[in-house]
Amino acid sequence: MTDQSSARIAAQFAFLTEADRLKSVLRATKLCDGSRFENTGEHSWHVALYALVMAEHAAKPVDVSRVIKMMLIHDLVEIDAGDTPIHSAAALDPALQAAEEQTAADRIFGLLPADQAADFRALWDEFEAAETDDAIFAKSIDRVQPVISNLETGGQSWLEYNVSRDQLEHRVGGKVSRGAPALWTALKQRLDLWFNAR
Amino acid sequence: MTDQSSARIAAQFAFLTEADRLKSVLRATKLCDGSRFENTGEHSWHVALYALVMAEHAAKPVDVSRVIKMMLIHDLVEIDAGDTPIHSAAALDPALQAAEEQTAADRIFGLLPADQAADFRALWDEFEAAETDDAIFAKSIDRVQPVISNLETGGQSWLEYNVSRDQLEHRVGGKVSRGAPALWTALKQRLDLWFNAR
Ligand SMILES: [Ca+2]
Repeated sequence: MTDQSSARIAAQFAFLTEADRLKSVLRATKLCDGSRFENTGEHSWHVALYALVMAEHAAKPVDVSRVIKMMLIHDLVEIDAGDTPIHSAAALDPALQAAEEQTAADRIFGLLPADQAADFRALWDEFEAAETDDAIFAKSIDRVQPVISNLETGGQSWLEYNVSRDQLEHRVGGKVSRGAPALWTALKQRLDLWFNAR
Repeated sequence: MTDQSSARIAAQFAFLTEADRLKSVLRATKLCDGSRFENTGEHSWHVALYALVMAEHAAKPVDVSRVIKMMLIHDLVEIDAGDTPIHSAAALDPALQAAEEQTAADRIFGLLPADQAADFRALWDEFEAAETDDAIFAKSIDRVQPVISNLETGGQSWLEYNVSRDQLEHRVGGKVSRGAPALWTALKQRLDLWFNAR
């Protein structure tokens, strides 16, 4: 093994070991059985699996393999920037959050060899921009998964953050409908039932 | 939305909600910071990311997107069959373990619409058989990730199960070398250092 390939593998392992910390970032949503808060590592797995299963419901045809790669890396910045629950007050300063996430992306993707750092960063930038068909679908899937967790746990984070049906439609429904309209249609009945029963 | 598409989406959500339980299956390895045992959901994310980063080191060229899909579903059977640590005594009855995992695969993939159930099952069967280049690489990556966790935590599960350097070579090194020889070469120095210092 040359010094060059050995240094390359060392950089790749350093990135993957740093990524391990995502398993210690807690989200606002609990597991479907309500036993504990979900972490962002397992969330990233779950939304990648969601994308694989639900790709046929994308608003426009997507490259599911690219979407899955986006899902695997979409939240790595939370290692430095933390998770900002969409229903919390902190979510009201998107400019500050975006700046923190850019700095985090510089550092974390920068651990990789330069060619991979550039590839991963471009994919993350595409996800964040939410303009391509792949990214629009990825964003919608990222929003669908916690809706299911909330339905399974009796509305846990909606109760905690006092979310109304209108707020959910505005903060979540819009994004889901844009990328995967059939999924929001399918969820509406369950959502109306839950919110009407409050 | 037709009744048919509505039933299809309901089956897909049922599968994805069942998959959530993988986040409560605990493995023998701890997180890299030693804070707690890893669960199989976050492990599945981490090995998918490993595959994405390390695909260039595969023994034979692989389709990284297929390997990532394998990684996402490779351990779903543990929802029913549990995790069997490779260094534990229970790992000595592979026939019983295989039978339990087959039954689990029938039930869990069977929650999906029939076409997806067949696709996912075929991909899982391919992973288990470890005969194609994609599956051989996937198996090697599945073994590399806990080696790194062990190195980071000072050999936590090797100490717990009293693993020798020869046992590690036999149980882990063989599989890693078969699918990603450069990675085992890169790890050997760190492993020899740790085992020689015991
Ligand atoms: Ca595994």
